[in-house]
Formats: sequence, C-alpha cells, structure tokens
Amino acid sequence: MYYIGIDLGGTNIAVGLVNEEGRIIAKTETPTLASRPYQELIKDMAACAKKVMEEAKITEDELHSIGVGIPGVADKDGMVIFCTNLGWRNVPLRAELQQYINKPVYMDNDATVAGWAEYQAGVSRGTDSSVFMTLGTGLGGGIVMNGKIWAGAHGAGSELGHLVIEVDGVPCTCGKRGCAERYCSATAIIRMAREACADAPNCLIMRAVEGDMDKINAKVVFDAAKEGDSVAMQVFNRFVKYLAIAINNVISFIDPDMIILGGGVSRAGDFLLDAVKAALPEYLFYPTLKQPELRIASLGNDAGIIGAALLGKE
Amino acid sequence: MYYIGIDLGGTNIAVGLVNEEGRIIAKTETPTLASRPYQELIKDMAACAKKVMEEAKITEDELHSIGVGIPGVADKDGMVIFCTNLGWRNVPLRAELQQYINKPVYMDNDATVAGWAEYQAGVSRGTDSSVFMTLGTGLGGGIVMNGKIWAGAHGAGSELGHLVIEVDGVPCTCGKRGCAERYCSATAIIRMAREACADAPNCLIMRAVEGDMDKINAKVVFDAAKEGDSVAMQVFNRFVKYLAIAINNVISFIDPDMIILGGGVSRAGDFLLDAVKAALPEYLFYPTLKQPELRIASLGNDAGIIGAALLGKE
Repeated sequence: MYYIGIDLGGTNIAVGLVNEEGRIIAKTETPTLASRPYQELIKDMAACAKKVMEEAKITEDELHSIGVGIPGVADKDGMVIFCTNLGWRNVPLRAELQQYINKPVYMDNDATVAGWAEYQAGVSRGTDSSVFMTLGTGLGGGIVMNGKIWAGAHGAGSELGHLVIEVDGVPCTCGKRGCAERYCSATAIIRMAREACADAPNCLIMRAVEGDMDKINAKVVFDAAKEGDSVAMQVFNRFVKYLAIAINNVISFIDPDMIILGGGVSRAGDFLLDAVKAALPEYLFYPTLKQPELRIASLGNDAGIIGAALLGKE
Repeated sequence: MYYIGIDLGGTNIAVGLVNEEGRIIAKTETPTLASRPYQELIKDMAACAKKVMEEAKITEDELHSIGVGIPGVADKDGMVIFCTNLGWRNVPLRAELQQYINKPVYMDNDATVAGWAEYQAGVSRGTDSSVFMTLGTGLGGGIVMNGKIWAGAHGAGSELGHLVIEVDGVPCTCGKRGCAERYCSATAIIRMAREACADAPNCLIMRAVEGDMDKINAKVVFDAAKEGDSVAMQVFNRFVKYLAIAINNVISFIDPDMIILGGGVSRAGDFLLDAVKAALPEYLFYPTLKQPELRIASLGNDAGIIGAALLGKE
C-alpha cells in the first residue's frame, strides 16, 4: 500500500506519495496562500495528492490513507482546532479533504509528525521511546512512547517550546513569559546575536551581514562561531546552555531512549551536537546514570511528508 | 492474592499487607536508622513483612509479591542505584530481601509509587494517563501512561522537581540551579516565608511561631494566609504562581488526563486547589483547550504502602 503525506506550512504545502518503507516515491508542492478560504487551500492539497499519485501511477485502491502535518492542534474527529499561522479555527480538514479523495485522513502537529518520521524511517527507528526537538522559528516537540505517538489526552502535549524555563522571562508570542522557545530556537539565536552585535559593530557576524542586523540568522552566527569569533561564540554558548537545560527537562520528565535535534538549526550538525553533549552533564539531575542517546535528525525537510504519510501506519 | 508494600523513608520504614482491591489489611513500622549497614535495615524490612502476614494470618503461598518504594533510583535488576537520604549506592535490595522471603520483589521511586497507588486505588483510578506531583520536602513526580508506570528508559524520568523553571535560579541540592522543587515544595514555602518575615516581624506567621523563624512550616504559612494575613498571602500567591508554572510544564509536555497534587503541602486541600485552578489559565499555552483534571490525592500517607504493594500488579 501507499500513503499520501501532506506537510502544511505557512508558505508552502508539500505533498508526497510514500511507500511502506517510508520512502518518498513522488512529490510536489504548491504555495499555501494562507489568507484565502480554507476550502480553496484544501482543494489544492487534494489536487497535489492526485498529481503525485498519477505521476507514480498509483490508483486510489492502492492508497491506504492520507496524513497531514499541521502547524497547530487537531482533535480526534478530524477538525483543526487552531492553526495560528494560517488563521484557522475549527476547520473540518478531514471532511473537506474526503470530498476529493475518500480515504482515511489522519492529522497531527508538524513536530509530532517529524518525530514520527524519524521513528518510522529515520534515526530513532528501533527505539522504544524518543523525543524529537525541532529547532526552527520556534521549538516544537514530537514524542513517541512504546512505539506510539504521544500527543496528550487533549492534544495539548509535546509543546516543548512552551515549557517555562525562566519565570517572568522573555515575553513569548503565546502570551506567557520565559517559554523555552524564546531561548532555544533560531529566533532566539537571532535575538541574542542582535543584542551582542549592538555592542560589537566590528564582530564577524556584523561583517558577514555588512552591518545589516536584519540579515542576521542562525547560520551566520554559527559560521562566525566556527571561525572562533568571540561575540558569535558567546551567543552560541548561551544558546547551547539553554538547549542543555531544555534537554535536561526532557530527561528529568520522561527520560526517553533517544533525543533527536531537528529543524533548521540542527543543520549545524556535529558542531552543535558536540557542544551540547559537552555542556549537558552540568545541567543533568543524574549525570552518572546512562543518558538518552542524543542525535541529529536524518530526514531533513522530507520528515514532514514522510511522518504525515505514515500516520496511517500507527 | 496479597501483596506486601514497603514504604522506605529516611525516618521510618512503613510496611503493610494489601489486598487485590488496594486496601491495607495490616500494617506496622520501624525506625529506618539509616546510618547502619543496609543488610540490617533490609532484615528489619523482612521482619516487618512477616509480622503483618502473621497478624493477618496470611501464608507465603497467598503472597503474590513484595514492592518497595524507595527515595531514589532502582534499576530493572533489583539494585538500588542510589538513595541520597540513606547514603545508599548499588545496594542489592531485591537479592537481600529474597534471602528472607522468596517472592518477586519490585521497586520504584517513592513518588512514582504514590502515583501508582492513586491510579490503582485512589483518585486517578480509571484514567488513561496521570501525573502525580508530591509537594513535600522536595517535588516528586509519578507518571502513569496507558495504564502503566512510566519511569523512563534509564530510570531518570518523572523527576518533576528537577525540571529547571528558572535559568541560573535558586541553587538546588542536586548541584543545578533553578530546579522546580526550589519553588514548588514545603522547603520553598519556608524559604520564601522566612525572606518575607525578615521585613515583617509582626505578621501573623511570626506571631504564630513566637518570633522563631525555625518553627515556620508550610502549614503555619497557609493558616496565616487563610486568615488573610498579607505577608502570608504574598508567600502563598508566589508559591501558587510557581506551582501553576510547573503544572503548565506538565501539560505542555504530556497533557495527561489528570494531574494529582499529593504530599504534605496538598493537605491544604481546596484552599490550595482553588487558588491553583484560578491562577492556571494565565500560565497555560492552550487555555482554551480542555485541560487535565486537577485533583488532590486521596490516599494520604498510605499511598506509599499501597502503591509499592501493587507494583506487583503492573
């Protein structure tokens, strides 16, 4: 059987046809254009799904199900409860999509879906429990326990970015303060770098962006840190410290077999991983116990399609 | 069948015989005297177990198993890896106990055991997932998911007291800083009350302890808060805020069906529960979603014996 996976993002909708092994057979994408009515957007999803099926010469009989990774919260009845980026509230995604392709439709949060992809076809395959941390614009989480997705009793779980790590800390877009994603995300790296660069106009970061702070991103900061620039190193080390604290919180809470770092920031690979591993013991409650394995995600951007597709395999 | 439950504390060892329904049929206790060799201490455990069996006229044939709740970490081979209060490291508790009573021996952390007791025979019975928070000297956690105890892949999980809620915050006995138990425990209430009383020598707390700060405990503070004393209310409200943040962290991470407040501080009952419920929405990521039910533990001190005994039922 085959599976359609839809990665619904704020900018693009990526759609792929995935086989039993979790490999993408065909894929396409279309702009989200989030401001239009959801009916049009979902019609485009269905058109993309049909397109990849045609491309791979797969009939509906060979299609097991459709899965959608959403940047928000869905309930068990196929309703998207809310999706801040898209301005969606109570959108009947399943029912709407089934008007075009009458197959089971599964949906879950995008970070959960990415963690599920790594478990089904990536770096955490074969583990019993894992926590996926997406280090992107925000900090997302995907939890697999006993080989099943854990998204909470009411769909509010695995929001690792909104665990508070600093009482009365940096204001968060969610309305609270001190949420982990204000410290452990690309957005946080940029904020910290801008603060540091304000006092260091000649640092390597500022030279790389030709003095334009709006051009600072996580890669620029990490590249400057790799070159040994002291301002960049200071930002990098602060980020690593916060991330080590967030990882300690994952371990002290559920202590999974494996913790996977994904999302754009994780593209720094071993440079990030080695630094986090070196910092971690200082922030652990039980530094002498065996620890979860810490790994970089292996599926990159494809995790969204693969994990969504394989929701039908849970 | 019957079950022996042993609640191994720093001061006393409480031992009970428990039936299938989770009711205590007979119980006894003996001083821990933690400084003596572990062999002697475990011998006393066995003697207490035999005593309650005799008292209830139960033979070894009718005994299913023995369970022990320990203030520390055990591995799957029946070894206590460490137990700070008792000064234990790598103590072969199972093997030692089986010298006296040759039955299966199960062991788990004391907060985990208390959460298991509430699930098996108390307030969280019938739920699919629950998180038990012991508000005592420290802050412990007991996680039940899909009807099973979750203690982590390496035994380091459910240490809710050691999730960091304040980067570089109050130093913790564990060596880290800003751990939740520095803010959400009887110890934290006492520390905050002493700080507040230093500037308010005539407040109700100080009058209640006749000016002796060493006599301040959580109950004195809560009693003064109930009377409307402004200093006590300020301490109480700070504690409630921190607890609401810790509860948000539980919800944002695993979003269980139910969160149970146990331990000595929870004896404040509705006075505490109502205040936490009122404060919580401000600290939640998804305040509009259905939330876990928040309840006070129902089994009191017996949870340690009952939960330990019923480890054999998992």
